[in-house]
Amino acid sequence: MVVDMISKKMENLVKNGSAIRAMFEEGKKMADLYGAENVYDFSLGNPSVEPPKEIAEAICEVVKDYNPNYVHGYMLNPGYIETRQAVADNINKRFGTNFGAQNIVMTVGAAGGMNVIMKSLLNPEDEVIVFCPYFGEYRSYASNFDAKIVEISPDTSSFQPKLDEFEAKITAKTRIVIVNTPNNPTGVVYSEETIKKIAAIMEKKSEEFGAPIFLLSDEPYRELAFDGVEVPYMTKYYKNTIVGYSFSKSLSLPGDRIGYLVIPSEVDDFENVISAAGVATRILGFVNAPSLMQLVVSKCLDAKVDVEIYNRNRELLYNSLLEYGYECVKPEGAFYLFVKALEADDKAFVAKAKEHRLLIVPGSTFGCAGYVRIAYCVDYDMIKRALPAFKALAEDYKV
Amino acid sequence: MVVDMISKKMENLVKNGSAIRAMFEEGKKMADLYGAENVYDFSLGNPSVEPPKEIAEAICEVVKDYNPNYVHGYMLNPGYIETRQAVADNINKRFGTNFGAQNIVMTVGAAGGMNVIMKSLLNPEDEVIVFCPYFGEYRSYASNFDAKIVEISPDTSSFQPKLDEFEAKITAKTRIVIVNTPNNPTGVVYSEETIKKIAAIMEKKSEEFGAPIFLLSDEPYRELAFDGVEVPYMTKYYKNTIVGYSFSKSLSLPGDRIGYLVIPSEVDDFENVISAAGVATRILGFVNAPSLMQLVVSKCLDAKVDVEIYNRNRELLYNSLLEYGYECVKPEGAFYLFVKALEADDKAFVAKAKEHRLLIVPGSTFGCAGYVRIAYCVDYDMIKRALPAFKALAEDYKV
Repeated sequence: MVVDMISKKMENLVKNGSAIRAMFEEGKKMADLYGAENVYDFSLGNPSVEPPKEIAEAICEVVKDYNPNYVHGYMLNPGYIETRQAVADNINKRFGTNFGAQNIVMTVGAAGGMNVIMKSLLNPEDEVIVFCPYFGEYRSYASNFDAKIVEISPDTSSFQPKLDEFEAKITAKTRIVIVNTPNNPTGVVYSEETIKKIAAIMEKKSEEFGAPIFLLSDEPYRELAFDGVEVPYMTKYYKNTIVGYSFSKSLSLPGDRIGYLVIPSEVDDFENVISAAGVATRILGFVNAPSLMQLVVSKCLDAKVDVEIYNRNRELLYNSLLEYGYECVKPEGAFYLFVKALEADDKAFVAKAKEHRLLIVPGSTFGCAGYVRIAYCVDYDMIKRALPAFKALAEDYKV
Repeated sequence: MVVDMISKKMENLVKNGSAIRAMFEEGKKMADLYGAENVYDFSLGNPSVEPPKEIAEAICEVVKDYNPNYVHGYMLNPGYIETRQAVADNINKRFGTNFGAQNIVMTVGAAGGMNVIMKSLLNPEDEVIVFCPYFGEYRSYASNFDAKIVEISPDTSSFQPKLDEFEAKITAKTRIVIVNTPNNPTGVVYSEETIKKIAAIMEKKSEEFGAPIFLLSDEPYRELAFDGVEVPYMTKYYKNTIVGYSFSKSLSLPGDRIGYLVIPSEVDDFENVISAAGVATRILGFVNAPSLMQLVVSKCLDAKVDVEIYNRNRELLYNSLLEYGYECVKPEGAFYLFVKALEADDKAFVAKAKEHRLLIVPGSTFGCAGYVRIAYCVDYDMIKRALPAFKALAEDYKV
């Protein structure tokens, strides 16, 4: 009997998956060995702040007051009309846009939404441009549809997009450009000026190649912005923008898998694109975004987690790391620090960090070697306990 | 500017999607014209029976008693250990199997589960065998991974599988065989004897071609069986069986998107297959099955919708249609009747039915022309009101 039964496309992913599981197992072993209090896990983007109290209230309200076959039944694949209308109204109110229910497709989180829109738009060999560093899962999403990821190298001085290289790398095959601001893993936010420049380049290149290029704005961190920084709404700057949103971080609901796509009426071939997104939702096996949670979030669109808790973590960790001699662009949003590794090989640095019981993620996972991601969506007290370990790690490199 | 922006693979689906939407719109127009009471929609498999009362109780309990970051947070991609263990225990208790949490992957309904396992196992050009008539979405799921659907023609005398043709059509490229019993659209249940024959053929052919062929048992209708008929548990008859289950019908929760895969430890290359299923769950954009509902269903594994309500519908509609001269194999499960159209062209028959304000689905959608599917998961009173229309439709053909 052949023993290797899994899809060839999955083989490397399964190997890497096992590596992550091995890390996870090792973390558990470390916790057993040193005590959970003495292992500092900064590896996961799992929100530490509680969902706002409105969530539990809304869940109980929906379960008590609504017809159960409505709450738990099928609706049209893009979602309940009432939810889609509430989402559109809320975006319009906040950003001065003009969307209707027909522009919203409720999705199984942002990851579900990105797969839906890529399934809708991409042909094999199409190119998807990403700015390094970027969320590594984009590689798998593009690969699901046999598209090719094209990386724009990082500007490590600012982690803002390198626009010359971007313009040079757009080809006739470029179908989607992904932006993610506030960014995972750097926490940087793109300014309005930067967005206008990106839009101008994409307009010019769409014209040049005679086919629209879609800007896919992946926005799970939109609400997690600090110091009053503005996160511009992309659809206002570029016609062929599609927004992928998630309530995972804004309402601390990552496990519930609820988000949406915004597909403006202005995008080229709107009728087909919106229909395709509904069909893709169905045939990729989502069928629809979870029904109960659709009704719940539509009641909680003005609620928000307490971002000040993340801000306090950010200030403590950022200031302490700088004091210990680390280099880091100060993040304006999300809940990550992207820190320069103290040696060229980020994986070796991550291994060294583990000796100090610090669990962090190598930057090469995000297409940016020589850096590491530190997720500070953790207890403030754990950060305090971990500071001596970060200090000792820095001292290891001062010899 | 090019106007046709959607993926080539999606073009026909979007066109058909529009046809379904057109039918839906027409249904609404009919309701406006004749009154909603006078339009008889038998087209959708959306459960009409309420979820058992345990569901609402469990939701409120989980929300009140559990840590909200646990209820709404990320867990390992295959699901909460406590849920997976509860599911395994429940299957073991009912069917005398011996599964553990490590054999269960929680999924976004059965549709999500089927995409996960196909992503895990299929290479382009691999063949997936289905028995006509079959749930048409299987075509899209296979196409998502560039696999080929191979149809076994229907035995319209019984709607049991044609085993000779099955054996003849297995090739070196056959990777998956899908069975769905109780069946959508016929409602037939495969006997233990039939399953043993299928297993024997698959064992022989796996041996002959030197590679295991997986039996994928799609079981959303397992709990909807009538007259005490037994629905055998497939893993007991064939080693390389993978079960896809959904709570959509058993607990009337289709909108919530909650189900699971059972991947027995005995399947070939188990370690890689189970790892691949976890990775596929993540990269297809599901990430994990909805967290709150995972915890809810694990408290409701012994609950069940009132199947007697569907049984009453079945008896009324089946007996009445026979009386009017229709031909139909009496279903033993699910909530569909698969009825012989009164003319060769099932689409023309469906159009004729619409003139009587009856909305039903052509059998060609299920790979079985000349028949129609009538979903009786509707109000009993609507069936009573619709009977004269079914009678009049039959009389149209008696001239």
